[in-house]
Amino acid sequence: MFVSQASARSFRLFSSTVALIGPGLGFCEPLTLNTRGVARRRLGTQSATPSYTVNKERLWNSIHETAKWGATPDGGVRRLALTDNDKAVREWFISTTESLGCSVNVDEMGSVFATRPGTSSSLAPIGVGSHLDTQPAGGRYDGILGVQAGIEILQVLEENGHRTYAPITVIDWTSEEGARFNTGMVSSGVWSGRYTLDYAHAIPAVEEDESGKATLRSELERIGFLGKVPASYTANPLSAHFELHIEQGPVLEDEGKKVGIVTGVQSMGWLIVTVHGANQHSGTCPMDRRRCALTSAARMISRVEEIALTAEGLSTVGVINSWPQSPATVPHKVVFSVDLSHHSTKVRERMIADTHAEFARIAHANKCTVEIEDIWNSPAVQFHEDCIGCVREAAENTAGVENVKEMMAGAGHDSVHTADRCPTSMVFVPSKGGISHHPDEYSSPEQCALGAQVLLESVLRYDDRLKRNAL
Amino acid sequence: MFVSQASARSFRLFSSTVALIGPGLGFCEPLTLNTRGVARRRLGTQSATPSYTVNKERLWNSIHETAKWGATPDGGVRRLALTDNDKAVREWFISTTESLGCSVNVDEMGSVFATRPGTSSSLAPIGVGSHLDTQPAGGRYDGILGVQAGIEILQVLEENGHRTYAPITVIDWTSEEGARFNTGMVSSGVWSGRYTLDYAHAIPAVEEDESGKATLRSELERIGFLGKVPASYTANPLSAHFELHIEQGPVLEDEGKKVGIVTGVQSMGWLIVTVHGANQHSGTCPMDRRRCALTSAARMISRVEEIALTAEGLSTVGVINSWPQSPATVPHKVVFSVDLSHHSTKVRERMIADTHAEFARIAHANKCTVEIEDIWNSPAVQFHEDCIGCVREAAENTAGVENVKEMMAGAGHDSVHTADRCPTSMVFVPSKGGISHHPDEYSSPEQCALGAQVLLESVLRYDDRLKRNAL
Repeated sequence: MFVSQASARSFRLFSSTVALIGPGLGFCEPLTLNTRGVARRRLGTQSATPSYTVNKERLWNSIHETAKWGATPDGGVRRLALTDNDKAVREWFISTTESLGCSVNVDEMGSVFATRPGTSSSLAPIGVGSHLDTQPAGGRYDGILGVQAGIEILQVLEENGHRTYAPITVIDWTSEEGARFNTGMVSSGVWSGRYTLDYAHAIPAVEEDESGKATLRSELERIGFLGKVPASYTANPLSAHFELHIEQGPVLEDEGKKVGIVTGVQSMGWLIVTVHGANQHSGTCPMDRRRCALTSAARMISRVEEIALTAEGLSTVGVINSWPQSPATVPHKVVFSVDLSHHSTKVRERMIADTHAEFARIAHANKCTVEIEDIWNSPAVQFHEDCIGCVREAAENTAGVENVKEMMAGAGHDSVHTADRCPTSMVFVPSKGGISHHPDEYSSPEQCALGAQVLLESVLRYDDRLKRNAL
Repeated sequence: MFVSQASARSFRLFSSTVALIGPGLGFCEPLTLNTRGVARRRLGTQSATPSYTVNKERLWNSIHETAKWGATPDGGVRRLALTDNDKAVREWFISTTESLGCSVNVDEMGSVFATRPGTSSSLAPIGVGSHLDTQPAGGRYDGILGVQAGIEILQVLEENGHRTYAPITVIDWTSEEGARFNTGMVSSGVWSGRYTLDYAHAIPAVEEDESGKATLRSELERIGFLGKVPASYTANPLSAHFELHIEQGPVLEDEGKKVGIVTGVQSMGWLIVTVHGANQHSGTCPMDRRRCALTSAARMISRVEEIALTAEGLSTVGVINSWPQSPATVPHKVVFSVDLSHHSTKVRERMIADTHAEFARIAHANKCTVEIEDIWNSPAVQFHEDCIGCVREAAENTAGVENVKEMMAGAGHDSVHTADRCPTSMVFVPSKGGISHHPDEYSSPEQCALGAQVLLESVLRYDDRLKRNAL
């Protein structure tokens, strides 16, 4: 409870404070602030970027060759954060980017920054980031495409001998999925100041190891990725952050669009609900004397779905477990997760309030009690106009104006957190059938390459703007 | 599915076949058959049994000293079948009964038979049985009291130099709880012929060991309790079976009664329900495109409760788990148990049919599919009039006619299975607050001793009847 309240407080602080973007930017226009305190200095709009082309086969092969670390028989990837498979792909990432002339740093959260120098001696790098960890039964594209496309950009710049103005840093953010350590986008959240390092390091692993004591920090130490660079936007700043990602939903495919220009991210977050009842014997305790935690939980699960439908938002209960796991015993405890999201932060707050009220009512009616922990709470995010503009130009140039769509992201991404501290935008490509977090996740070689091409051109356009603004 | 159908077939066979009671009984009255094929030869009703008194302190101390094997900090016992703690208490049981002059045999299911000889050279022993395994978060009395009271009977007979006519065998039935190996009363079920030995030996352990391959048989071998005596009522017969047990419900306490004369056991059993949906992303998949296994499961759990209430029966969902365990993923699979019970076998069958129909309807309405396995199905049992008569006489003699109550058992006991093959009855003592399968389970020293006294007198009365009928 302390943690989530602390996080909520931190967020309110961010909203009313002028955020630092990092030293050395050299902008000269006046600052404008959006509601989240992010500097919105408008950059010049002209652009004259070189036209390089990403290598579709190289990108595709790299995605599928590295899928061996965590590959499952059904074609998916199970690469939970900070496991041995995650260690292996990180080591591959470091050796690959070093061979492309990058210097590699690891921060205190284990995030890896592979930086290709620019001609400016003072500018913070333009970040191109995503993540290499997956869900327990994940696919080959979620997060992975964004990092692989970053490496492909390094390849293209290297083979064309192109020196950018700002350094380019390709980032593998640690534990974006929040599947093994139950906080999503946790390392970018520490970098942005939304979470404290101590909080993040102490998150226990969901799996039970022999000692039951594995934490994010102990696992960082175990795989040798507890770095020394401060996980902080002030000590390790970015000029901007771009991220290519699969849509993970059906909208682009349904509407026949090729590229999504992502203007922001919906409000989302997680509750952890614990229902307490009483152990009673299944065959001897009359129904009217029962205090069944699962009967209560089932009603709550049905009710939160109604709350989401009424609010035109989304609700998901993904994790549920009962104690003790015995068919002949009325369970005394049930724990489940609730994921709630909505385009509007305000409406989502109302959904949470309704959930609290209704769960308390249901628990009381069933002679149980309920505790609700608000463990992750991410307000809606509006991305930066300059970055959106670069993505828009790149997308329209590459895919044609009729094939692009401006949209909000439904899922959390590390860009949610970078957007607190530097101009940010994202590029989406279609997901077949809208499927994600599943072995059947798929985007074609052409879709992946088109996304990487838009990402490359977005970065070069932003770099060009930085250069022209510095002159 | 094969297993449960096989079990169902076996049961129908039992119902229409004259059951064997075992050789050497020497009855001379005509056989009468109850609906379950159990021989109901009426024994003579006169009795002249000696009056010995159980030792309250000795019984109480033995219950609590042996609780060390599996003791939990909250005063309960966690002694899952065939674990190291179960091994330890079994070894104690063997050495204790051997020191009281018993010969000890272990059958192919690991059930331990400690037999004190009688004067008759041909009669099968009178069984006094229950179980020493517990639920995962169990108490100190469920099952344990019955075995400990059996040992106390041996103590009393030994210190009084009383030689019974029939041998007396105190039995620790293996894995009554069905908590670690998901079939309740499994070893008495093999003994009675309701389950095959192969089925029982192959039951996997619920817990995950390193190999994930532990079975009931491999665990019997591991702890050295895979005996050679056939687990069979023909090869290892009983003249009768008596069992003392805590009520595990609130009825005796609520009505101020001291002893329950158990006339039978309600119909009960377990379904294992698997709901299949699809993995989808919590933040991007529209609500109307979802195939959420848990949304479906929650509705099923609420619905089965309504089915039970309408039928005036009982329903319990004790175990539930979702896959993959990720808050950000719509679960594609949910598995849960359903325990249904009713005094009437016929009404319970209707409850099961309603459950099948309603679960299929709910799954379809939610774009999911459902599989239901009927893994355990126990019809209502009527105990044997002769044994009930002995318990009634003993209870009224010991506790006073105003303090006894005739009742059906709500929970499954090994006596359900012995009743298929030999005259059987049970004795109940009150459970504080009706609590069972929980560390707070409690019956007082006086209640335990009164139950043991009724058990002793019931056994002596039955032995006397056997003797008089043999003359």
